[in-house]
Amino acid sequence: MTTPHSFDQALVLDTLAEGHYRGQTHPAYWNMVGPFGGITAATALRAILLHPRLLGEPLSLTVNYAGAPTTGPFTVDATPVRTNRSTQHWNVSIVQTGADGEPVVTTTATAVTAARRDTWSLADMPMPEVPRPDTLQPVPPVPGVEWFNRYDLRPVAGALPRQWNGQGDSSLTQLWMRNTPERVLDFCGLAALADVFFPRVWLRRAVHVPAGTVSITVYFHASAPQLQATGTGYVLGQARAQEFRNGFFDQTAQLWNEAGTMLATSHQIVYYKE
Amino acid sequence: MTTPHSFDQALVLDTLAEGHYRGQTHPAYWNMVGPFGGITAATALRAILLHPRLLGEPLSLTVNYAGAPTTGPFTVDATPVRTNRSTQHWNVSIVQTGADGEPVVTTTATAVTAARRDTWSLADMPMPEVPRPDTLQPVPPVPGVEWFNRYDLRPVAGALPRQWNGQGDSSLTQLWMRNTPERVLDFCGLAALADVFFPRVWLRRAVHVPAGTVSITVYFHASAPQLQATGTGYVLGQARAQEFRNGFFDQTAQLWNEAGTMLATSHQIVYYKE
Repeated sequence: MTTPHSFDQALVLDTLAEGHYRGQTHPAYWNMVGPFGGITAATALRAILLHPRLLGEPLSLTVNYAGAPTTGPFTVDATPVRTNRSTQHWNVSIVQTGADGEPVVTTTATAVTAARRDTWSLADMPMPEVPRPDTLQPVPPVPGVEWFNRYDLRPVAGALPRQWNGQGDSSLTQLWMRNTPERVLDFCGLAALADVFFPRVWLRRAVHVPAGTVSITVYFHASAPQLQATGTGYVLGQARAQEFRNGFFDQTAQLWNEAGTMLATSHQIVYYKE
Repeated sequence: MTTPHSFDQALVLDTLAEGHYRGQTHPAYWNMVGPFGGITAATALRAILLHPRLLGEPLSLTVNYAGAPTTGPFTVDATPVRTNRSTQHWNVSIVQTGADGEPVVTTTATAVTAARRDTWSLADMPMPEVPRPDTLQPVPPVPGVEWFNRYDLRPVAGALPRQWNGQGDSSLTQLWMRNTPERVLDFCGLAALADVFFPRVWLRRAVHVPAGTVSITVYFHASAPQLQATGTGYVLGQARAQEFRNGFFDQTAQLWNEAGTMLATSHQIVYYKE
């Protein structure tokens, strides 16, 4: 008997009715005050992918973090609100039961899935030239951030500051990343990777302020066979901020596989304090 | 008696119940096979801004174009699904009645509004140095694209190709834009401006293929007073694609006012044929 990968354990959803599931937060993907946002995004997507009326493959996913889930069970609802010939539009919500017995929405999401066809295609933002992952050192564990131990992260540029001295000068991070232990990439794994980047405000300022993602959008460029071909290889992630303003900054990110194929582009808006 | 600006006419919503409105498509903002996507995004946002339980100002907005609305009435539902101390999460849908009398979802949206406070802030992507709008010529009207006449658009770089000769070499557009006639900028006006860019695939290929936005996300960096201060001035929009793949490309965009303040960043995923 093989134990499933912790990522797949965390994504287990029991079907209660069509599009209605029950899941459970997993300690392996715990962040400081709730689950790693990437596992929540993957959970929302998983609910769609399990749906018997699914059309096509993920094209876009927007996840809004309404409030940190608490440890324990949750329900997920995934509804195909419109199905066209080649695209399908989804609403998703993740709900827990509050202390007073009332439902508490922790997460909302929308997604589009699409049946794609071969067309003229072009990579308009090539992967930067960076050292290969086997020439770089993985970052050490961060005490108290459990999900961090589930990834092998090898920064090329813009690693977590070693000194919180207020001397930051760039918001750019480039890093190779993959699951540890290894796991073949799929859409849920890719959605989670899009949220691996630590808050840009930490890097840009070299000041460690409270921060958390409010909303993330992922555009999937890869097909299932391309993800399968990427396999357990590393993914190069690149992220930078564009604007920090009055408590929120945005982040724009790209993810390529080792062969240089753009797998996904992503954006998020992030709360920060002070 | 003053006639309201056509933009405000198009955004008129009659309240039927709390968060439940009725509107009407407006011919002044008609695109080729449905309304201009920017007016639809503005309508979704307008429904939120009219809500009596609104907290704060727009922070993020994701609009999914499920299907082109037909000419005529529609209803909008805006629901605050979670209200925190300083953020509020919204679900929005726009629905029409189909030929068979059944409801048809044309648009879904999620948004986050936030009560923002002054914090450390920093522009990490400065406005490019470009010629001022009064030194540039507005683009002429495009026959059959009525909404185009509602904007004064002055390209700096990456205008609509003059020849569809397959000789495109860049997906970058920079252009100054504002409403015509002039209108003081507000959040709805800004949301619409984020969707003014014509499809990147036309520019990159210099081939005129069918294309349409599937999903757009706007992150608002400006406050209401900053938009008021921007007034009727021009907004510099910059847009580029990152990846064209099998029927869909993404676009990343930035919008600054003439003073160089970043007003919004935006992203979209767009369908294209062939």
